[in-house]
Amino acid sequence: MDSLSIQLDHGSGGRATHELVNEVFAEAFNNRFLLEMNDSALVEVEGGRVAMTTDSYVVDPIIFPGGNIGSLAVHGTINDLCMRGARPMYLTAGFILEEGLPLETLREIVESMAAAAREANVLIIAGDTKVVPRGKADKIFINTAGIGMVPDGINIGGHNARPGDAVLINGTIGDHGMAVLCKREGLAFENEIVSDSGSLNGLVQAMLNSCRQIGVLRDPTRGGVATTLNEIAQQSDVGIQLDEESLPVREDVAGACEILGLDPLYVANEGKVLVCLPQHAAQEVLEVMRSHPLGRAACKIGEVVAGEPGRVFMKTRIGGLRLVDMLRGEQLPRIC
Amino acid sequence: MDSLSIQLDHGSGGRATHELVNEVFAEAFNNRFLLEMNDSALVEVEGGRVAMTTDSYVVDPIIFPGGNIGSLAVHGTINDLCMRGARPMYLTAGFILEEGLPLETLREIVESMAAAAREANVLIIAGDTKVVPRGKADKIFINTAGIGMVPDGINIGGHNARPGDAVLINGTIGDHGMAVLCKREGLAFENEIVSDSGSLNGLVQAMLNSCRQIGVLRDPTRGGVATTLNEIAQQSDVGIQLDEESLPVREDVAGACEILGLDPLYVANEGKVLVCLPQHAAQEVLEVMRSHPLGRAACKIGEVVAGEPGRVFMKTRIGGLRLVDMLRGEQLPRIC
Repeated sequence: MDSLSIQLDHGSGGRATHELVNEVFAEAFNNRFLLEMNDSALVEVEGGRVAMTTDSYVVDPIIFPGGNIGSLAVHGTINDLCMRGARPMYLTAGFILEEGLPLETLREIVESMAAAAREANVLIIAGDTKVVPRGKADKIFINTAGIGMVPDGINIGGHNARPGDAVLINGTIGDHGMAVLCKREGLAFENEIVSDSGSLNGLVQAMLNSCRQIGVLRDPTRGGVATTLNEIAQQSDVGIQLDEESLPVREDVAGACEILGLDPLYVANEGKVLVCLPQHAAQEVLEVMRSHPLGRAACKIGEVVAGEPGRVFMKTRIGGLRLVDMLRGEQLPRIC
Repeated sequence: MDSLSIQLDHGSGGRATHELVNEVFAEAFNNRFLLEMNDSALVEVEGGRVAMTTDSYVVDPIIFPGGNIGSLAVHGTINDLCMRGARPMYLTAGFILEEGLPLETLREIVESMAAAAREANVLIIAGDTKVVPRGKADKIFINTAGIGMVPDGINIGGHNARPGDAVLINGTIGDHGMAVLCKREGLAFENEIVSDSGSLNGLVQAMLNSCRQIGVLRDPTRGGVATTLNEIAQQSDVGIQLDEESLPVREDVAGACEILGLDPLYVANEGKVLVCLPQHAAQEVLEVMRSHPLGRAACKIGEVVAGEPGRVFMKTRIGGLRLVDMLRGEQLPRIC
């Protein structure tokens, strides 16, 4: 291509669009479904339950410690499929580009998407590119939608938490949100805070292979662990009691949160999963989680209770009990 | 909801997001898959070929004669599925909203999406909403992705045009692009030019019911009929010869194009389909098309030829033959 940055005619549907698609997207996402270059891609599926999801990504900055908007867009949508017990298979990618975006930046982002998809064994089979004039978007927005098949016997959803269940998480909380925020605000700490952005399908698969009684899986992204647990409490009409002492927070994340007046319970994660499952199965699943690279710091953080349905409480370090509400207001804009 | 316009906290994932989702999206798109409010929606499919596609919509203005960005986003993705012979079934919708967008405008757009989906008998089963600060996007961008099943025996794609095929279209060209452009530029003609934005699944279904030999279906959106025919010529490695005399253009569209120095062959359509099929089946399929509300003005506009593979020519009114190239440059930005 002639230009070193995105021009309006890259979105025209004409020759420049074709060059961009061939030289950037098709080369990176290289697979036979996409390369057919038809209005939609055709794939074979077996009959059964298909999970389908979508997310748009508008994170600022577009490149942050531990990832960029492209890898995030692949991880996030894969994870939303995993949270129903689905095996993620196919993604679509829709790009909205601001005129003037350096082509080099686009290539870096697209290559990260391709690498994230390869790593998770999913294919990006259809795409779309629009270009808007300078000042009408902020560099790049990406939408990914995805489908995956849910094996028979799996029944996972936010309404399946039962009193007595244990609540588990696969590691430390707040890493993604603080990584993005520190980068955006130019805050430097002794160690750089790195996003946890990653695909959870391998971890979730291992967990489901060992235990079919998992009722709820949910990734605590925007709104953080607090908001996600409130959603589960409401959908299942149960109470949830957290144990502050057991909440895993990296020291640097905790420190940054304290300086900025944020509560890590409300900060976004992009490689974490909350799990509700019968107490008697918790130890075995925790061991499976800890033997996976994305679950080394897995732990139990609370319990599902019958009282106070729809509400989340936390037993504090000093022995009190405080209400943990859903996020109110916008704690951190453009975090994903 | 308290506010009369979109605020940053509507994209936080917390309480305000939940209110927006419940009061605007869930109410309009109302179906049991979406209402489960899980990370992804689960649907049952039969085994076979699934078509999957995505498109982002950034049209300016967001409301135009004949539709708005919402109805367009539903029509466009349904049509991309139809172009493989698929029966569109499920859509996802991803919204990027600019802070300050009037809630009333959002409601109007979302209701148009719901109406378009109902009319085409598809369900919007999953969604996502992001909000960016004022000036970081232009009012509203929408991504829709979709899936549909392709019945056995259907084999449609851009590589299936054969020398001797007839090339058909279901009506007048350039309506959508000129409707948007005239609205954007404040150009008034005696009659308002109205977009052809519409779902082609009913029309395409009727055509496929009558004839299984249709090789190519493609909707001439961005880049117009000229660009789309060039794509088909290249994918099928054939030549295509258009007949200028037979190209259906509304008088007001032709007039507006002339004033603005545009060629209707390059102007976007959003309710048109180009068809390549064996000559002997053309008459019957034309009759089926003409008996459908979206095909009243269907006609044959050209032929597939063996010579000059990869190129499109047009027999002009005065009897000459001119090359019809793919669109170069950006004729009309943000038309869809």
